[in-house]
Amino acid sequence: MKIGLLQLPCGEDREENLRRAIEAAEAAADQGAQILCFQELFASRYFCQTEDARFFDWAEPVSGPAIARLRRLAARRKIALIAPFFERRAPGLCHNSAAVIDADGSLLGLYRKVHIPDDPQFHEKFYFAPGDLGFRAWRTRYGAIGVLICWDQWFPEAARLTAMAGAQILFCPAAIGWLPGEKEGEGRRFQEAWRTIQRAHAIANGCFLAAVNRVGFEPAPAGPEAMRAQESASRRGIEFWGSSFVAGPLGELLAEAPEDCPALLLAEADLSRIERVRAQWPFFRDRRPEAYKGLGRLFGESAGLSSGPLSGETSRREGGA
Amino acid sequence: MKIGLLQLPCGEDREENLRRAIEAAEAAADQGAQILCFQELFASRYFCQTEDARFFDWAEPVSGPAIARLRRLAARRKIALIAPFFERRAPGLCHNSAAVIDADGSLLGLYRKVHIPDDPQFHEKFYFAPGDLGFRAWRTRYGAIGVLICWDQWFPEAARLTAMAGAQILFCPAAIGWLPGEKEGEGRRFQEAWRTIQRAHAIANGCFLAAVNRVGFEPAPAGPEAMRAQESASRRGIEFWGSSFVAGPLGELLAEAPEDCPALLLAEADLSRIERVRAQWPFFRDRRPEAYKGLGRLFGESAGLSSGPLSGETSRREGGA
Repeated sequence: MKIGLLQLPCGEDREENLRRAIEAAEAAADQGAQILCFQELFASRYFCQTEDARFFDWAEPVSGPAIARLRRLAARRKIALIAPFFERRAPGLCHNSAAVIDADGSLLGLYRKVHIPDDPQFHEKFYFAPGDLGFRAWRTRYGAIGVLICWDQWFPEAARLTAMAGAQILFCPAAIGWLPGEKEGEGRRFQEAWRTIQRAHAIANGCFLAAVNRVGFEPAPAGPEAMRAQESASRRGIEFWGSSFVAGPLGELLAEAPEDCPALLLAEADLSRIERVRAQWPFFRDRRPEAYKGLGRLFGESAGLSSGPLSGETSRREGGA
Repeated sequence: MKIGLLQLPCGEDREENLRRAIEAAEAAADQGAQILCFQELFASRYFCQTEDARFFDWAEPVSGPAIARLRRLAARRKIALIAPFFERRAPGLCHNSAAVIDADGSLLGLYRKVHIPDDPQFHEKFYFAPGDLGFRAWRTRYGAIGVLICWDQWFPEAARLTAMAGAQILFCPAAIGWLPGEKEGEGRRFQEAWRTIQRAHAIANGCFLAAVNRVGFEPAPAGPEAMRAQESASRRGIEFWGSSFVAGPLGELLAEAPEDCPALLLAEADLSRIERVRAQWPFFRDRRPEAYKGLGRLFGESAGLSSGPLSGETSRREGGA
């Protein structure tokens, strides 16, 4: 089957972003894409660069007009879609979500981002409540898929649980890039770490992984926070690093997009390889859940790197031989 | 601080292997290594290529003479040692273990391999009971360390729990290589997957990771199994791929050994970087243990990739818009 990923820049006009994304999705369908994934929050600029309550007006319920348009597109073009969107669930309760739409236009379900970042220019904890639907998999017409959204991608627990739910392909829509000055510093390491950890999810779980990231520079919006710091506002922004890719179940790169321009990335995925690779590397046979109880804690028992005994420390003073 | 890894070939004479490893450890101490890790089962050939009960004679308790010699070495040279060994615990009960020895010769504790492989020429389930000591960390004189042994390295759960126990450096002694014919086939992908998933453990956990693998070709021992298949015995064996490495907390390679010759790999590790990297990528702040309950199961609820509804499948027949 054929995976499609849409890596696009976003402008200020949300209707225009949506129109261009749908146009690109039509082109992807023309080229044979069967499951197509848009980037995180693809219909708008990455507004989380600042904390500004007016952006809540941009949220829409899953039953809103944007998802409806995409469902019609899916049905018309017989293409399954993964559509990340700013989900309005109730007044004062929004999520960073993705609608999973099958190739007949039916809404298979919803994924709500579980791990919410909060870092300079990534103020997501202000906008999004952590997802409460868990890690899921859905059988689309062309394959079983799961979704992890951006920050989720750094947590092996999320990939593992999604694969355990039955996903053959993990889709990871993202909005990740460099803050000013980062690219010249440790920025390349960050980008390589992003690629590496996601390739590792494919390896650990013997599945495919498709990461799709936005591209282009977006200045920080002039929100109230920026107004309080006028001087720095002009320099602030994020250079999203594109570099969308598809990895196979041994972590090998099957296709990769450039880091600095829009791209429709297409990759053939032979899902029958999952059976063969997992027979060769039977990690699921050898997991030992009874040894993983500690994962239900936030950190280790004694925790301290800086003082106190470490967990597992035994017979410290047994003395030399 | 300075990490040392000893990547060595092993011959048939176990006393000779041990003598040469101790000699190499002395050289490592001369060159300033402060925590030194030997490869998995470093005192012998990788006997698990065949199932043969006579190899149980090679097992030794942690109180045996081999570990005693290493503890004297550690005390004399003020070097912390991670010493993987074939542990005899009781008649009919052995483990694939590692002794953690501090720089004063004291025995800090024991790690027993949790994930036991069983694949062609890696018949470990015959020899080793799965470890029952969990994932641990110990504070050596030069840094807090944890140990994962070979097959463990493919399980993100193991790395996570060891980091959560407080480890600053994950040591991963291994015996991994190519079966005849593999190197020319998918062998390079296997090797790259091995490197990638371990680099990803360093990334996911913001810590250092030091992997040390044996090197050289070892023919399959002429055990009873081989005797039953004389014809193929002459071709059987494993080409261990060396390639020991040390990765930093962004997954970057700090040092790497060749794949085809013995090596003492030394790497400077600035452990204070852990604090800085984790402040920048605060994954531990954002773990959501309440969402990870499923990790306590062997696989997902509905599981089937080939039939039946997938977990998380909802509103399948809600219909198109």
